[in-house]
Amino acid sequence: MPLGQRVADKIMAVIEEEMDKAGAQKMITPVLHPLELWQETNRTVSTGYELMKVKDRRGAEFALGGTAEEMFVDLVRRFKLSYKDLPLNLYQFSTKFRDELRARGGLLRVREFVMKDAYSFDRDEAEFKTTYDLMAKTYTRIFERLGLKTQMVEADNGYIGGEYCHEFVTETPAGESKYFTAGDYCAHEEVAKCVFENMNADEAVKPFKIIDQPEWVQTMRDFKKHYGEPEWRYLKNIVYKNRVTGQIVIANIRGDLEVNPVKLAHAVNMAGLLEPAEEKDLKKLGTKRGYVHSWGHKGVIYAADNSLKTVNNFIGGQKEAATDSFNVNYGRDFKAGIEADIALAKAGYLAENGQKLVEKKGSEVGNIFQLGYHYTNLMTGSTFAAKDGSQKKYYMGCYGIGIGRSLQTIAEIHHDDKGIIWPDSVSPYQVYLINLQTDGEKVYEALMTAGVEVLWDDRAEVSAGVKFADADLIGIPVRLVVSPKTGDKIEWKKRDEKKTELVEIEEVPDRCRKD
Amino acid sequence: MPLGQRVADKIMAVIEEEMDKAGAQKMITPVLHPLELWQETNRTVSTGYELMKVKDRRGAEFALGGTAEEMFVDLVRRFKLSYKDLPLNLYQFSTKFRDELRARGGLLRVREFVMKDAYSFDRDEAEFKTTYDLMAKTYTRIFERLGLKTQMVEADNGYIGGEYCHEFVTETPAGESKYFTAGDYCAHEEVAKCVFENMNADEAVKPFKIIDQPEWVQTMRDFKKHYGEPEWRYLKNIVYKNRVTGQIVIANIRGDLEVNPVKLAHAVNMAGLLEPAEEKDLKKLGTKRGYVHSWGHKGVIYAADNSLKTVNNFIGGQKEAATDSFNVNYGRDFKAGIEADIALAKAGYLAENGQKLVEKKGSEVGNIFQLGYHYTNLMTGSTFAAKDGSQKKYYMGCYGIGIGRSLQTIAEIHHDDKGIIWPDSVSPYQVYLINLQTDGEKVYEALMTAGVEVLWDDRAEVSAGVKFADADLIGIPVRLVVSPKTGDKIEWKKRDEKKTELVEIEEVPDRCRKD
Repeated sequence: MPLGQRVADKIMAVIEEEMDKAGAQKMITPVLHPLELWQETNRTVSTGYELMKVKDRRGAEFALGGTAEEMFVDLVRRFKLSYKDLPLNLYQFSTKFRDELRARGGLLRVREFVMKDAYSFDRDEAEFKTTYDLMAKTYTRIFERLGLKTQMVEADNGYIGGEYCHEFVTETPAGESKYFTAGDYCAHEEVAKCVFENMNADEAVKPFKIIDQPEWVQTMRDFKKHYGEPEWRYLKNIVYKNRVTGQIVIANIRGDLEVNPVKLAHAVNMAGLLEPAEEKDLKKLGTKRGYVHSWGHKGVIYAADNSLKTVNNFIGGQKEAATDSFNVNYGRDFKAGIEADIALAKAGYLAENGQKLVEKKGSEVGNIFQLGYHYTNLMTGSTFAAKDGSQKKYYMGCYGIGIGRSLQTIAEIHHDDKGIIWPDSVSPYQVYLINLQTDGEKVYEALMTAGVEVLWDDRAEVSAGVKFADADLIGIPVRLVVSPKTGDKIEWKKRDEKKTELVEIEEVPDRCRKD
Repeated sequence: MPLGQRVADKIMAVIEEEMDKAGAQKMITPVLHPLELWQETNRTVSTGYELMKVKDRRGAEFALGGTAEEMFVDLVRRFKLSYKDLPLNLYQFSTKFRDELRARGGLLRVREFVMKDAYSFDRDEAEFKTTYDLMAKTYTRIFERLGLKTQMVEADNGYIGGEYCHEFVTETPAGESKYFTAGDYCAHEEVAKCVFENMNADEAVKPFKIIDQPEWVQTMRDFKKHYGEPEWRYLKNIVYKNRVTGQIVIANIRGDLEVNPVKLAHAVNMAGLLEPAEEKDLKKLGTKRGYVHSWGHKGVIYAADNSLKTVNNFIGGQKEAATDSFNVNYGRDFKAGIEADIALAKAGYLAENGQKLVEKKGSEVGNIFQLGYHYTNLMTGSTFAAKDGSQKKYYMGCYGIGIGRSLQTIAEIHHDDKGIIWPDSVSPYQVYLINLQTDGEKVYEALMTAGVEVLWDDRAEVSAGVKFADADLIGIPVRLVVSPKTGDKIEWKKRDEKKTELVEIEEVPDRCRKD
């Protein structure tokens, strides 16, 4: 709507100014992406679940762009650039489409939204690192100007590809992102690393044995009830499936921990492809819930969490209904094909730096990705002429800011119980003018002529009380009132202060610039 | 690309300024339109051939917006406005999609483009006329500021609906729009009206007769060869079909004239639905090409052009192969169900005001439409609370400007054989700075600090000649050169003038503002 549009425009103006300052160039690519480009990078599969497609009258297929790596690589490779043209950083503000399972959170997760997305093309990794740092600083500065203090949080790159990425997150209890800090370390829940100390290193390793087990003992709760041991003493197995190939992956983890499916997917090289297995998958495997075993199922990829090395003499399940295994020791009795940190981090767990993880919540407003050669390896001809005359692949990165997300987060951070308190930099207008029992036209014209952005509440049929309440709700930083009481002067009140002052109308433009 | 984007941004800024001045409010609606809205207005049928559709993961269908009447009416009806909120004029800049049969003309007709579209909501026709006039003046002013002289040309409203509309056309031989002027009258070829004088009023009406005809006489050319009479003497029948219902329409017209399918479609109330009939349609009718008759085919709608009243004693065809009809007189021997002006206008024909039509070519850059109650009749609940307490339907109009079209037309109008000559108002930069055998950095910084938009050609490896040629090609209004020859001063040259001057660097900002 009009007021929100003005805020969005101001947000985009700040982003544009800072991106231009950083040497990036604005342009635009189409919303309709030829599907062939997405096939070149296999992303029709890896993002299949949220890609919207459309066919034209001739039957050609297009994806509605949700991110534009392929489009920019395709553009740049057509231009046959040389090392002299680099580094190059191109960006756009464009409408993006993501067919989300659950659109939610107001403007936070929607299926159609405007994003600033930038794509950098560097000569090599060293040059890229400079670009990445520059973008990190530029983002911090952009969000500062928008009134948002942000933290750079290590994050998962999802289907974007590349080796590392960071989210810019504003801490707020209303945020949808859960992340952890531990000293300098700051990482999103999806990727947060954790290490575990030995639970019972002093306990002697005992001989493996199979014991009888009552039929009712199936879940972790049953185990605890029956054996009376703490949760860490048990072996836990969680079954996942690659949703494209059907490959079964069994994660082995300490009984008191949970599996982080994102970390697991990376560990088994199936980013974006894992989903929980269903009963029918277990059936195919010749088993069922409660009887999955930590080793020995055929055709399965086993991935063991590092925590298995912190316990001596686990109690484990068996494939059979009537037995359990005792004194199971990782490395002696079984060993998974993949060993990795696949545990879900929680507050109080230890980070790699030895400090305890502190849980935070926040709203993600931007993100930056190293892409490296991910796209330029997959898309033939994505090269530039190097100084030595050879053709070299571009080293890439990409950088996004959601406009609606930023707008909503600013409102979330800057408000009180009466309404929004817009920062000056993004307020839809500079002043909210109210006239009471007097003509406001002259004042309005004078302020407009002086270049002040005025929202004039000239409603005749509405009471002073309603106007004051609406002024607070809308949240323009300055409220001006003219009435018989104010005489030749005008009442000046800042949205975030209680005091009012009478000032000369001529002072208003200067005060707006200063305040 | 970046330079074009800067021009597009400046075009949009001019449009925004003038629309805001006219009291319109900017906002944005989604690209994905729920298909139900288009079903409410039957436009899934009437624009079916260029509507792109997409299904989401739940199977809900959306149209990719090509125009947004339904979206804005739906928005406004949710707000339950009163007469106090009117008139209301809302606009957006948004990406539009039209699955054109033939995309062509560079940026003129493309399948994805950015359009400024506005929608006005008035209390009644009288109030709307004021809005329509204001928009006409606003458009003229916008295009003037963009360096385009425009004419307001009566046009066809296609599938938009309503009773009248105007295109804003810039005259240029490269244009794709053919239109006619005759004194004050100015109309697009698709709707241009024409009147015809009597060809042989002094010739006595003779008795109708059927004569033998050699089998080879089938086309208009054969007729002329066989009978040796001028083309106007023959009756011509052209067959069309409603592409949704299959209804056959036969247009009867004087042999020297052509049918205007747009005027015909309006005459038979099938706007946007007629297409030429194919051989198989004629077969169903029990006839074939060359044997279609001016009357007597069953289940057919006949539409006769007014020109049939200007000839006595036509020569007409017959349904049979071996005969023709002589002395056919309209009104005596046959009469069509519909009589209308359905002839295609040509240069030299008479307009209704008695003046001869002059043919012009131009590029359409904008259009304004009266919509009246077209949408508010079809979309239930599109009403406001009137002063008397009753619910009244909005009286509507809509107003479009294509950004890419405008950009391309400006370049078409403002160029010479060396390249573009951008008007100051839309030039991507204010000055093009070239440094030769000297450092340009200091000058660049000084100009940037003074707020001048500088494109600095700092290429080291490129000759002066190439830089000068590129400066002319890109077409920035002012070229600045610093070299050992210019000393402390700088060479100033306007793109559209030959002379160069040496000026102080400090003068440049002021000169940019003035020139």
